[in-house]
Order: sequence, then C-alpha cells, then structure tokens
Amino acid sequence: MKGKEKENRNETVKVIPLGGMEQIGMNITAFECQDSIIIVDCGLAFPSDDMLGIDLVIPDVTYLKQNISKVKGFVITHGHEDHIGALPYILKEINVPVYGTKLTIALIENKLKEHNLLKSTKRKVIRHGQSVNLGCFRVEFIKTNHSISDASALAIFSPAGTIIHTGDFKIDYTPVFGDAIDLQRFAELGKKGVLALLCDSTNATRPGFTASERTVGKTFDSIFADHQNKRIIVATFASNVDRVQQIIYSAYKYGRKAVVEGRSMVNVIGTASELGYIKIPEGTLIDIEHLKNYPPEKTVLITTGSQGESMAALSRMAASIHKKVSITPNDVIILSSNPIPGNEKAVAKVVNELAMKGAEVITQDTHVSGHACQEEIKLIYSLVRPKYSVPVHGEFSHRAAQASMAQAVGIPKENILMINSGDVLELSPNKGQVTGHVPAGAIMVDGLGVGDVGNIVLRDRQNLAQNGIIVVVLTLEKYSNQLLAGPDIVSRGFVYVRESEDLLEEARRVVDDAVADCLARHVSDWGKIKNEIKDSLSDFLWKRMKRSPMILPIIMEV
Amino acid sequence: MKGKEKENRNETVKVIPLGGMEQIGMNITAFECQDSIIIVDCGLAFPSDDMLGIDLVIPDVTYLKQNISKVKGFVITHGHEDHIGALPYILKEINVPVYGTKLTIALIENKLKEHNLLKSTKRKVIRHGQSVNLGCFRVEFIKTNHSISDASALAIFSPAGTIIHTGDFKIDYTPVFGDAIDLQRFAELGKKGVLALLCDSTNATRPGFTASERTVGKTFDSIFADHQNKRIIVATFASNVDRVQQIIYSAYKYGRKAVVEGRSMVNVIGTASELGYIKIPEGTLIDIEHLKNYPPEKTVLITTGSQGESMAALSRMAASIHKKVSITPNDVIILSSNPIPGNEKAVAKVVNELAMKGAEVITQDTHVSGHACQEEIKLIYSLVRPKYSVPVHGEFSHRAAQASMAQAVGIPKENILMINSGDVLELSPNKGQVTGHVPAGAIMVDGLGVGDVGNIVLRDRQNLAQNGIIVVVLTLEKYSNQLLAGPDIVSRGFVYVRESEDLLEEARRVVDDAVADCLARHVSDWGKIKNEIKDSLSDFLWKRMKRSPMILPIIMEV
Repeated sequence: MKGKEKENRNETVKVIPLGGMEQIGMNITAFECQDSIIIVDCGLAFPSDDMLGIDLVIPDVTYLKQNISKVKGFVITHGHEDHIGALPYILKEINVPVYGTKLTIALIENKLKEHNLLKSTKRKVIRHGQSVNLGCFRVEFIKTNHSISDASALAIFSPAGTIIHTGDFKIDYTPVFGDAIDLQRFAELGKKGVLALLCDSTNATRPGFTASERTVGKTFDSIFADHQNKRIIVATFASNVDRVQQIIYSAYKYGRKAVVEGRSMVNVIGTASELGYIKIPEGTLIDIEHLKNYPPEKTVLITTGSQGESMAALSRMAASIHKKVSITPNDVIILSSNPIPGNEKAVAKVVNELAMKGAEVITQDTHVSGHACQEEIKLIYSLVRPKYSVPVHGEFSHRAAQASMAQAVGIPKENILMINSGDVLELSPNKGQVTGHVPAGAIMVDGLGVGDVGNIVLRDRQNLAQNGIIVVVLTLEKYSNQLLAGPDIVSRGFVYVRESEDLLEEARRVVDDAVADCLARHVSDWGKIKNEIKDSLSDFLWKRMKRSPMILPIIMEV
Repeated sequence: MKGKEKENRNETVKVIPLGGMEQIGMNITAFECQDSIIIVDCGLAFPSDDMLGIDLVIPDVTYLKQNISKVKGFVITHGHEDHIGALPYILKEINVPVYGTKLTIALIENKLKEHNLLKSTKRKVIRHGQSVNLGCFRVEFIKTNHSISDASALAIFSPAGTIIHTGDFKIDYTPVFGDAIDLQRFAELGKKGVLALLCDSTNATRPGFTASERTVGKTFDSIFADHQNKRIIVATFASNVDRVQQIIYSAYKYGRKAVVEGRSMVNVIGTASELGYIKIPEGTLIDIEHLKNYPPEKTVLITTGSQGESMAALSRMAASIHKKVSITPNDVIILSSNPIPGNEKAVAKVVNELAMKGAEVITQDTHVSGHACQEEIKLIYSLVRPKYSVPVHGEFSHRAAQASMAQAVGIPKENILMINSGDVLELSPNKGQVTGHVPAGAIMVDGLGVGDVGNIVLRDRQNLAQNGIIVVVLTLEKYSNQLLAGPDIVSRGFVYVRESEDLLEEARRVVDDAVADCLARHVSDWGKIKNEIKDSLSDFLWKRMKRSPMILPIIMEV
C-alpha cells in the first residue's frame, strides 16, 4: 500500500500550528486538505512567570470547532504532557478518535479516566510501520527514540504530497528498550520524495550527537559500585521509563530492593510494567511500606521531584515533610535530569536542603537529553531531503538554528519556512507560503475555570502581587449625598499595619479631604468621587513611599 | 610592621556573619575582639521569587547597633552590589568610616552621592599591601583577581591570631589590568601561621581552574575578525571593567568606534576611566548620539542587559523600545555573561526576540567566571594552611563542597566550621566553636520603605497574586443591626467579570444568605458576621471552581 499515493501538483495541504511556536509546550498542529483535517498532538503548557495563579495552559481550538465536520482525529506522537496534556480539555469540544502507539494511548487513557472521558472517547492503538486512513490523509507511524518509550514520527500522506513530522526525537543506536529509530524508512520516504519536513528543534543549538540512554546506565552502575554502604535515591522524570529500567537493573545487579515513590512515577511505571515496557526482575520492586524491613544500603528509591517541584516526593524528603522517608548523611542522591529552564533555582533549593542534611548529591553525567543535536538533525535532513523545511518544537532561537542547518545541508533559503502559531501555511509542489491566519493562543486554566482568567485579571494579579491593595469604603445618603459612614481604609499586602499606623492615619486624612472636597463641591457622580479618592491617595503614597498599591474605592448608598 | 602581632592563646576572636550564608548576596561579616568590632563588606541581596514587590534586601544589623561603641569601621573587599549595596542604608544607622581600594571607594562614593551621604561618611582609600589599624585589629589588603578591578582579600590580624578572608576571588596569572593575585603574600602569611581562612565557595562544585579573563579577549578578536561587515553589540556586566577594556581593544584593532550604553555601564566605565582602570585609545569611544555618523559595521555597542533585566539597554533593544538603537539582521550580538541562576528564562526571552529580528546571537566562549574553581581553592588552602576553615560565599551545597576540599587537603574535619548567618563563631588557637547567636536576617526594602513589609504582608501578596481578592461590603444600622445597604461584591484579579456574571450572581446570593442568617439569629458580633461571610463564600468558590481568593468582608455602621 505504501507509496501508492499520487502527488497532485495542483493540490495543496495546509499546515496550521495552533500552539507550540511562541511558547514551549502546547504542541498541536492541524493538517488540512480537501474535506479533511487531522490534528497532530494536543499538548498543554505550564504557565509562564507572569501567569499568576494559573495552573496550566491549553490551546485555542476555535478554528477546529468552526470546521468540526472536517476533523477526522488526533494522531499523537508520544505520551509527554506537552503533547497529550490538553486532550481531556479539547476532547470535550472536539470529540474525534485518538490514534497513537500502545504506551501513548495507555497514558492518554489514564488521563481520560481522571476526567471521566474514557467511555466517550474513541481511541486506537497503532503499531510502528502501520498507518491509519483519515479522510484524504494516510498517517504512518515511524519508530523513533525519545525520553519516553513508543515515540513516533509521522509520515502524513496527502494528495499534495508527503509530510514528515518527527515529533520529539533523538537518534539512539543502542536504546535501552525496543528498536533504534527507523532511519531506513526515513531514507525510503526521502527517496520517493517528501514535500515538507517538520523537525524537532529543541537541541538545534547544541553541536554533536546526543549520547545514548545507555551511557546513563553505566554511570548508575559505577555510582552503585562506589556507594555500597549507603542508601541511594534517584530522582528523575516520571515518564522516563527507560531511565527507571536502568536504575532497576543496577539495583538488581548490586542486590538492592527498589521502591518507586511519587504519584506520577507510580502511575507511569505501573502502566509501563503492565504493558511490558519495563522488565522488573522478580522480588526487586518492593512497596514503600516494606522499606523499613531492609537495611538502607540494600535499597534504592526511585522518585519524582528532579525539577525541584515543591510538592514532589524528593522536595518533600528534602524539606523533612515526607511521611515515609527521612534524609540522612547515609544517603546518596542522584539527580538524573537537567533543570528545565526556569527551574534552576527550585532545583538548587532542593540540592541545598539535601546537603544540609548531610547527604551527598550527584548531578554529573547522570542524564542525557531526549532530543536530537545538530548532527542528528543534519542526518535526518540528509535522509529525507524535503522540498520544504518547517522547523518546529523549541524556542524561536532553536528553530532559527535549525533553519541555518537546513540551509547548510542544501535546502534553498526560500523553502525554509519559519511560521508562528495561527499561521496557515499552504504547501504544494509548486509553492509554500503563509496564506492566512486563524485564532491561536493560550487559554488559561485556573482551578476548574477554563478561560475565565484573561489579561485584565492577570494584570490585576500582578499589580496586587507587587503592591497590595487599599480598599476605601464610604456610605452616602441617597439623594442628599451626605456622608453617613467612612471613609474607612483597609489594606492587604501593602504594609505591616502595626508598624505603619502613622502612615495609614495620614492616608486616611488624605482620603477624608478628597471626599469632603467632592461633597462640598456637590459632586454627585460616583465615578468622579472614586477617581478623586484614587488620584489623591495614589499621589500621596507615591510621594511618601514610592509605591503604587491598587486602590479600590467602594461607595455604598443608604 | 607585618607579622609583629603576638598571638595570645587565651584571646578569642568572634566571627559573626550577619548575612550571606542562607542566601546569595548580602555579604556582611563582623569580627569582634576585645573592645573592637570591624565589619567586612555590606552587601545587598536581590529579592527571592517569593518576595513579591520587594526591590532589594539588606541585612539586619541590630547586633551592631547594640554594640555601636565598639564598631570601628567597614572594610570592603570589592565594589560589587552584593558587597557594597547595603552601605547607604546601613551607614544611616552605623556611621563609621569605610575602607577599601581606590575603585571600590569610588563606586561606593557614587552610591553615597545618590543617597546624599557623601558629606557625612568618612572613607579612606587603602592600597594593596597597606593596612589599617582598627581598634585591636589590623587589616591588610591583599591583591586578588575577580570580575571587577581592585578586588582584595583581607588579612585580619587580631590578638587571637590572623584570619584571612579571600572575598570573591579567582586566580588570574595573566590579568587584563594590574597584577595577578599576590600568592606570595598568602604563602608568607600561611608560613607565619593563620588561625582561620574564610574562602569563597561560589565555584567550589566546579572542577579545574577558572580560565583567565584574557581568553575572552581572544574570542572577541575572532568574532570581530569574522563579522567585519556587521554591527556588533556586546552585552556584559556593567562592573566588569576588564571585559569592557577588551571589547574596546578589539574595537580599536578592527577600526570600530565604541559606544557605551546603559545607565550603570556609563557610570562604572566613567568612574573606571577617570581613575585609570581602563585605557581608551583616543577617538575610539563615541557618544551614542554620534552613532548615526558611522556605518554600522564600523561600530560596536557595549551595553547592559546580559541578564535579561527587563529595563536594561539590551532588553529594550530586543523589544524595540530602545530610543536610539534598532536591531536588524545586520547585527551580531554577543552575550558576554552566563545567566545568574534564576535569570535563564529572561535571558532566553531576549535571545529569542533578537533572533526574531534576524540578528545573530553568540553565547559560546564569551565569558569566564570571576570565582575560583576547585584547583584554585585547593591552592589557596595549600598556601595558607589555616588551623580553621570557614567556607563562605555561595549556597550551602557550594560551601559543603569547599568543606570536602578542605578536608581533602588536610584540615581536620572538626576544624572545618560550617556556620549560618547570626552564628557567633569563637575562634582561639585552642578551639573554634559557635557559642551564641545574634539577630540576623533579611530586611526588605520596597520603594522608600525599609522593613515595613514583613512575612504577613508577603503572604497576603502571594495569596492575592495566586487568587485575587473579593471584597464584600455591607452597611448596618447602629444598635438595630439592620441591613441598610449591600452586601455588595467587588472582585479584582479573580475572574473576568463580564464572562462570569452568573457565578458572581450566585456568589452574591451565598453572601446574602449568610448575612440574612446572621441577622435573623441576632448575631451582633461583627467578627462573627465577617467569619460567616468568609466561610460560606470560600466554601462555595472552592466547591464550584477549586479556587480560594482572598475574601475581605467590610462592615460599615450608620
């Protein structure tokens, strides 16, 4: 069946990223041709620093809702949050089938269960090498390597030509589990002609090759060999099943019992184990409750928290608030991860807390990336030789670095297309250009609210965070506008009230004067009275203390 | 005179760090012996992420105020903010003379001018090799190398023995300006006997040697050679005079005019130039106003903003809000710095913005650290061979790494003293131990307010930042407690009001019911009424939206 598709020089296929370009995470790209739309991935993003109080961010899928009759399904490259995390939110609005490899679908099912969506969602497991027909598209799943098992690139066959989307990937010639990336298939498709390559840019600024996952296993072995009299604790990403596999192998080799700790770690390893993605030698894995039955130097704890997340297992151990594990000078802690940008300080805090308890912390050579470096990216380009290059995944500077490499390996500059979220990129054998824009952007989720916090609310939160609030309340008599009570001043997050009584007393007088002045001038427009209160008080506070708290005047009428 | 001091085995000297141990920055350490106290450095810290709205942090000097009659002066190791920044605040309370090398004192004078303290503050320039007598102490300034010129270690001679404080330092055998670190003097003092070494730990987890500042100059030369048709912009730390010197040398060599941009950069380079710490070939430095008279490829801009600080020159250029410089694809931007932990995302943002404008951004091999790595630290220990080791400067994990090295080079474990801010460490030839504690900690500065924001205010700000606020106001009639107006609900930073009218209407009903219920039960205690409002509303909001805004009930009486 493969390669049967005919390329029609008059057909075009639209590539529409709905997220993932301006911010890391929230990967979702629609492909549209004739009467069909397919969606590659549906990830969430974690809030940026200015999104105060926001729990997570999901993509705006207005365009898909407007074209719901065309939408054939989600094809998912792998099971990381930034590729599957928004599914439970988006499926409520776009209820179409979900396709992915076995582990990917299993991890999605865990999410659907939590959101009570298991029954209402169709899903299908696809094996590497297999494809699925979705309207005028056929999508083939190609084996790749990444920091989670069962990752796939996608060959998207359309009437306008073949597009390859690498997903997140690296080239691992000696993977811990399963096969190496199917480079032959990339080459075969390339030989037949590929219209466009959408390739992972995450590590595009790093020279060389990403090391094999197996190199970390060797480091583990040597750390286990060197610390036979100590308890070992390894923190890593919950979803890095191969990493956990290697820790368990080292544990087995050195006669230690292994404990898995941290909710997400327990979930993922449970699922991976059920499906055969991890092999656990009998008797090696024990429950945390049985830890006390073994001498510490005969155990290893595998935990979450390698990013310093305050509620994760390792952070709770470091802060002495973990119920079952106390850190002692007899512990060696391996951080098997690099801090994700933005998490450096949180990680340093945990490392310091662990060091203060006398534990040894090891961070050198204990991690390899799951993303392709420059030589790997060049290799993929050399195998695929696409007509168009569309760098994806990574910040702008990373995508720009991939663009340079694409040019270096021979893609003409005008065929390298740097696009933004919401751009409609039309590709045909004759030309590739952005021909329109659709709504795209971040919908913020706060608690159970989806989209009810917007920029005005965030600006208020920022102002409140920086300066606090002063509420000024007064009661006026209806018609006469006579002052019956107040103005009273209440502040929160502004100054330590007990030590600032004089200041607050002065502020009250400033407000008194402003109100008295308004009433004397028979100002009856409450808006004006409120503005006078705001202006006079904020003037006073800026002059006195160089601060500008939010001022909220409230007038009651009796 | 040197070495004349007699060591008295019955004397003790107290080492009291008042800051700098728990957090980076805010370096200040008191040394006390007999009737004398001297203070080494007086730095500020930048607020941690949880100190919302705080501008900077200064040390608590209660102990010094309580012992003001003993305090002889400040001795300052070098002119970085984390060593001099709190002086203008502390000098208002502890008005004693300030001693330092020429550039250090000049940078302090810039600060004193801003705070109108120049007249009231005694200060004295000390040359390397010279010493100053302060009560029973004599303090000798020893030449070191660091990322700012004129850095000093201090040999503190006391009746109980000699203490060496390295300050921030590295070993640079080929410095750009002035001499290499005076290793001979360290050795000479070591030979005579040193009671304690307080050594910089910042890079104690990094193996090897820190490269010479000159290596960066070579990188600049090769970048200038490779980009002769482009404008070059270099961002670095304002205080790194030697770095700026090397950029100016490269500019001169390649026939470019140099512009210095950014307020702090202009200030520091102006001062350094006046004092002869930087040599500017005639005609090389031009004013930014004259930039337009030269072809871009014949200019280089030296700017602040290498840490992604939002108001610094480079960030303003990247965001297209700089008044005089627009970034184009004809620009090469060199970030001559590493991100300080916590600034990674801000730096990445600027890099992305620059890349989006088509500029090339270079970050490789463009920076060396100003702090000693492991081999340098071991060298200093080997020259000084102190009786006691007191690791200073750096997070706990860095200081712990130095402790390991001290042990490795032969200091007995019990003589390695890990102390915290506020600890009183008593040292004598016979013993070294913490014998007491004094107040120490962070005083927060917000606008003109010093210390009027405390933990309660910060907690409120955090709550406001995460969840916003709902103010509930009602007016009751005096005596009768009849409801005259309200309850009214006003929210800020909570939800987008226009899209959440139903929710807010429900919330109002919940409050109505709570108030009606209280009044029906003739509850006249306002505290109780307020609590009922809070409890019922927060219950409702948690159940409905899993959110907990701050709820502020205000009752007025008419």
